[in-house]
Amino acid sequence: MRVHIQRKPETVALEALRAALADDIEVTFGDEPLPCTVLVCGRPEREWIEALPGLQKLVIPFAGLPAATVDVMREFPHVAVHNLHHNAAATAELAITLLLAAAKSVVPINAQLRSGDWSARGNMGRALQLDGRSALVLGYGAIGRRVARTCTVLGMKVRAVTRREHADSEHELHRPEALARLLPQADALVVCLPATTETEGLLGREQLELLPPSAIVVNVARGPIIDEAALFDVLKRRSIFAAGLDVWWNYPQSEQDWGSTLPSSQPFHELENVVMSPHRGGHVSDTETQRMLALAELLNAVARGEQVPNQVDLAAGY
Amino acid sequence: MRVHIQRKPETVALEALRAALADDIEVTFGDEPLPCTVLVCGRPEREWIEALPGLQKLVIPFAGLPAATVDVMREFPHVAVHNLHHNAAATAELAITLLLAAAKSVVPINAQLRSGDWSARGNMGRALQLDGRSALVLGYGAIGRRVARTCTVLGMKVRAVTRREHADSEHELHRPEALARLLPQADALVVCLPATTETEGLLGREQLELLPPSAIVVNVARGPIIDEAALFDVLKRRSIFAAGLDVWWNYPQSEQDWGSTLPSSQPFHELENVVMSPHRGGHVSDTETQRMLALAELLNAVARGEQVPNQVDLAAGY
Repeated sequence: MRVHIQRKPETVALEALRAALADDIEVTFGDEPLPCTVLVCGRPEREWIEALPGLQKLVIPFAGLPAATVDVMREFPHVAVHNLHHNAAATAELAITLLLAAAKSVVPINAQLRSGDWSARGNMGRALQLDGRSALVLGYGAIGRRVARTCTVLGMKVRAVTRREHADSEHELHRPEALARLLPQADALVVCLPATTETEGLLGREQLELLPPSAIVVNVARGPIIDEAALFDVLKRRSIFAAGLDVWWNYPQSEQDWGSTLPSSQPFHELENVVMSPHRGGHVSDTETQRMLALAELLNAVARGEQVPNQVDLAAGY
Repeated sequence: MRVHIQRKPETVALEALRAALADDIEVTFGDEPLPCTVLVCGRPEREWIEALPGLQKLVIPFAGLPAATVDVMREFPHVAVHNLHHNAAATAELAITLLLAAAKSVVPINAQLRSGDWSARGNMGRALQLDGRSALVLGYGAIGRRVARTCTVLGMKVRAVTRREHADSEHELHRPEALARLLPQADALVVCLPATTETEGLLGREQLELLPPSAIVVNVARGPIIDEAALFDVLKRRSIFAAGLDVWWNYPQSEQDWGSTLPSSQPFHELENVVMSPHRGGHVSDTETQRMLALAELLNAVARGEQVPNQVDLAAGY
């Protein structure tokens, strides 16, 4: 089986890929695809796919599904599209990190102690205990399931919202229609949804106003799932306890902007009860190696004729 | 059964206590103990215990065992001493919080994004993934067990060190003698030990030098278990990745010092790879209520003649 990978990984990750791949898989690299059965590429040109008559699968080497890729691949229904969830563990870990850091006011209290100020020690109101409280996880994919399991072991009552059926779930699952009924009990609201036209704006002012004063909102999915002005307002007037945000509404447009782009039109950076993270959920020291190991696992499954993981549904958008 | 509680809790916690206590338990409050079967007091005077001939149990209303209390109670071997672990969940949560915040460089990266700097997004080396790594938990009491369970669900290989036997443990347990052999594999080293003469200085320069470059040291027990100069050195020259510290070597001596006491003779506050927390593991918004609920559970067990939890061993010191 021939596989073409558009972007060649750096040495360590490449070695991990080669060591993990089955012997009968031949790999080529480069911007212009060579004839192959599987193309590994996030944003293929229409002409490339047309020029690959033997192509059976496109593998997007990250989580997510770019709109341009959906547009192209809709014209080639015989080519199955898959993506990689290699960063699910890292992203779930960041979600739990942001939840706990927000619950314990880690950032402002760290700053105080660095200047010799111990006053937070006696101020019990600055930390919430998660054990005994309730978590609502939106999205029950690879990330949401990990978040749900961790919240359970922390002693939380966990509910998750998902559109899909999960026959063997260990958690209490609800349909999206139940959201308004679930929000008033959500001490932790962790957003792990895919970015689709249906999830955009899902958490507007009306929904955020339903949250209890103990609520901590965590978003590791996409910024526009939450209304930024409404979230800023509930945080500022403390009608919720805190937030931990890895995803935003405003991103640097070019390399020159990386040092000087505020992530929202709202001044979240003036709030003490928000932990801010620059969209790096899946970025850890060995991300590229993990990506190649996940890719090898997927390609080996294709070569062996086994069930191939993470096929995406172009119509659903994830 | 009569119980005397030296320090009367505030209203909400008192109501929780009254609601949870069995009907046949009569409670008195005040500095000078009245005749009772159980005295709830952290630092009893010798004369008080002498004046209570019917006393069967002393309950220290917090985790830990003050040296002065050991000195007094050694003279009254017929009085069993118990303490409360009501804050085990909160302290374990803070341990995991500090571990994750240190692993993901949450504090410095938050500061960067607040000023519009996204550079951390592309710097994979600033975050470690815990999934797939190893955790070494020192101490396997109420806190250590919770930390171990959470590390397991995060995908870590967990080992714990304990002096006591735990027949039904779900984790790989080791004796203290194995420490030097275990440290080179400890990506996370979480200290949840009691403060005793044996644990003081347990982690000296020699031990800290055995840790791998990926190591994150978390301490929610007592500062002097770790050599402060040696820990500062390995952090400063990055021979370990980071640390999250809730306990210290230098504390404010009076109320006037609460705003101006650096917690160590070493300038930890100049290091980016340490998360600093002012000894507040067990302090959460409803700590006092949790304390009274744990006390009620213990007192109810005494009244019913059941096994009473958390008896301390005066000789062992915990």
